[in-house]
Amino acid sequence: MMNIKISKRMSKPDFQGEFIKAILSAAADPNIISFAGGLPNPVSFPIEKMERAAKAVLEENGVMALQYNGAQGYLPLREYISKRYKEKMGLDISPQEIIITNGSQQALDMFAAVMVDPGDEIIVEKPTYLAALQSFHLYDPTVLSINLNEDGIDCDELAKAVSEHNPKYIYLIPNFQNPTGLTYSADVRKKVAEILKGKDIIVLEDNPYSELRFAGTHQPSLATYLGEQCALLGTFSKIVSPGMRIGWVATTNKPLLEKLLAHKTTMDLHTNIFGQMVMERFLAENDLDKHIEETIELYKNKAEYMIACMEKYLPAGVTYTKPEGGMFIWATMPEGIAAVDVQNATIKKGVSVCAGDPFYESDRGVRTMRINYSNSSDEAIERGIKVLGEVIKEFMK
Amino acid sequence: MMNIKISKRMSKPDFQGEFIKAILSAAADPNIISFAGGLPNPVSFPIEKMERAAKAVLEENGVMALQYNGAQGYLPLREYISKRYKEKMGLDISPQEIIITNGSQQALDMFAAVMVDPGDEIIVEKPTYLAALQSFHLYDPTVLSINLNEDGIDCDELAKAVSEHNPKYIYLIPNFQNPTGLTYSADVRKKVAEILKGKDIIVLEDNPYSELRFAGTHQPSLATYLGEQCALLGTFSKIVSPGMRIGWVATTNKPLLEKLLAHKTTMDLHTNIFGQMVMERFLAENDLDKHIEETIELYKNKAEYMIACMEKYLPAGVTYTKPEGGMFIWATMPEGIAAVDVQNATIKKGVSVCAGDPFYESDRGVRTMRINYSNSSDEAIERGIKVLGEVIKEFMK
Repeated sequence: MMNIKISKRMSKPDFQGEFIKAILSAAADPNIISFAGGLPNPVSFPIEKMERAAKAVLEENGVMALQYNGAQGYLPLREYISKRYKEKMGLDISPQEIIITNGSQQALDMFAAVMVDPGDEIIVEKPTYLAALQSFHLYDPTVLSINLNEDGIDCDELAKAVSEHNPKYIYLIPNFQNPTGLTYSADVRKKVAEILKGKDIIVLEDNPYSELRFAGTHQPSLATYLGEQCALLGTFSKIVSPGMRIGWVATTNKPLLEKLLAHKTTMDLHTNIFGQMVMERFLAENDLDKHIEETIELYKNKAEYMIACMEKYLPAGVTYTKPEGGMFIWATMPEGIAAVDVQNATIKKGVSVCAGDPFYESDRGVRTMRINYSNSSDEAIERGIKVLGEVIKEFMK
Repeated sequence: MMNIKISKRMSKPDFQGEFIKAILSAAADPNIISFAGGLPNPVSFPIEKMERAAKAVLEENGVMALQYNGAQGYLPLREYISKRYKEKMGLDISPQEIIITNGSQQALDMFAAVMVDPGDEIIVEKPTYLAALQSFHLYDPTVLSINLNEDGIDCDELAKAVSEHNPKYIYLIPNFQNPTGLTYSADVRKKVAEILKGKDIIVLEDNPYSELRFAGTHQPSLATYLGEQCALLGTFSKIVSPGMRIGWVATTNKPLLEKLLAHKTTMDLHTNIFGQMVMERFLAENDLDKHIEETIELYKNKAEYMIACMEKYLPAGVTYTKPEGGMFIWATMPEGIAAVDVQNATIKKGVSVCAGDPFYESDRGVRTMRINYSNSSDEAIERGIKVLGEVIKEFMK
């Protein structure tokens, strides 16, 4: 056997790799009720409409759909996204300021590659999206974690961190955050903008869930206040289809945009154009708002049903967020109970939940837990939450 | 305007970025005859068959096509590739040893990320594939270039480099190489294997063109001799469709495979599953060999016609390869004429060719030039080569 000399970058263990393997293998077992993942409910997939779109694209523009294309992405799709930014968020972002990526996950990697030298400081929420931490870790940053409160990131902590450190960027998920499901209040958004304005810190605003709001009112993007200081990530994964892997990064910051585009080109030339054209056709021929409304109705019912089950089956002492949208509930176990122990005990009873640990840069043995409601039947929700309640009660004895 | 602090990695100018921008902008102009790119001829795209495949996938398995999927790629597609390795190349590579990527370009990036620390030595052919050099350069290696002869890489130079250096890997394109169109002889393949066997050097064998052979006989992969010492890159871009961005990396080297898969997962979760399923369905329902035969017949005629035009219009003193397959002819200008000057002069007359410079790690002002024949009409080939001949004659005065 030869001795292969892996790069230092990839010689480190994967950030939380073992944890994720356990979750994924549980999710792959059809006999397990899984609240651990973050999958959209396939009931929401527009399969027939996508079939019509694919047919139209290949019949009318087949050569373009199968040939090489530009790195930035299909122009009509970028035009659609640009228009939607204006309509939904009041943001002026031109198609030339948008790059189509293989899901927003690829944009996370591109962004870190363009920004981070080993040891550079970056700021994330505490807790934050697991796969963003994984992406960033490939580039060896020093990660500063700022606590997330019910109404958004802790502004005092943030102000202190910004004054004492030199972070290159701050990664935020202000709407129905992953993992907590929490949303920043209007007040926190303004304060965050005040703290960061004029600093040499890019705000990377990730926003996969904001369109999935079933209560409360829409809140403005940080780009409303910070303009070219922001890079915005978006995706069709949670509102149309994740399997097509179509996301984007948008920024009015020209030097940043150019570097992101250069990196995208080198990485894989361009995102599959066939998929981009089919997605664009689907969007042009159908009412996305109407499609999303149906998904919202579905998720609202799931969330309410899960909350009702939690009220019924979880013991006093367990607290949890009541989401206004998105796909997740964030539960906190009573003092002295590690979520990972609960996770391991529920899996043995056929129910998979996701302990909070991998969403933290360094905290382990935490009491928090992410529970996904989007992709389970009502029956599975009731059975699964009942098991969860029983397991927690055992630990409380 | 804020001061944005780009990573050192991306602060360097793109490797040959300006050169490529010039080529791309020429290629985008429909009034220019372009021999500068490397696009498949769209006549070869199976549009109707792809439409039937897309319809079948969405009707029969729509949920899977639109949902998240595993990082390694669609199993039936990997099974197809595994079977084809056995049938066409006599190689035993299981579906579990294959990772589907966004074109083989992404696999180049993954491979370099997994292998290269700054300053590490790697070996490439001289000249070699431009976009591979670009990928590798992101990771800051020391690039050793070994001359390519008519029958393959120079084995004496290679043996010397291997004995005097500690390269982590060697990147080779043994069939219808890009940019030269040259193919390694059976003898050179055996010698290369002897030189490398047992060394701690991975052989990265890139192979986009081998199925496009219109003369001569098929030669074995280096994996025939070197097994787990190799990583093989493949793609459907040149034989079915580049726009769908479906390539792969295959290796029986388990530690390497695991690291590549971990990197793929972090980068973008997985390659678009809709496209993978449509491609697999197309392959299952159609005879790929027959499809490729038609493409070969087309390219054979184009190559022969271009060679005939070169014989007619290019002045004595210009030499060029006569390819047995693939998409490129490699021409050498007479002593004292820089290909880049010829390139700049022909563009002004509406014809785009690609000077050899960007295919070399450091040589500039070279006399060599890559000429693509796959994607031009016979009329364009005659007109373009005539212009090229006139321009070269001007320089010879």
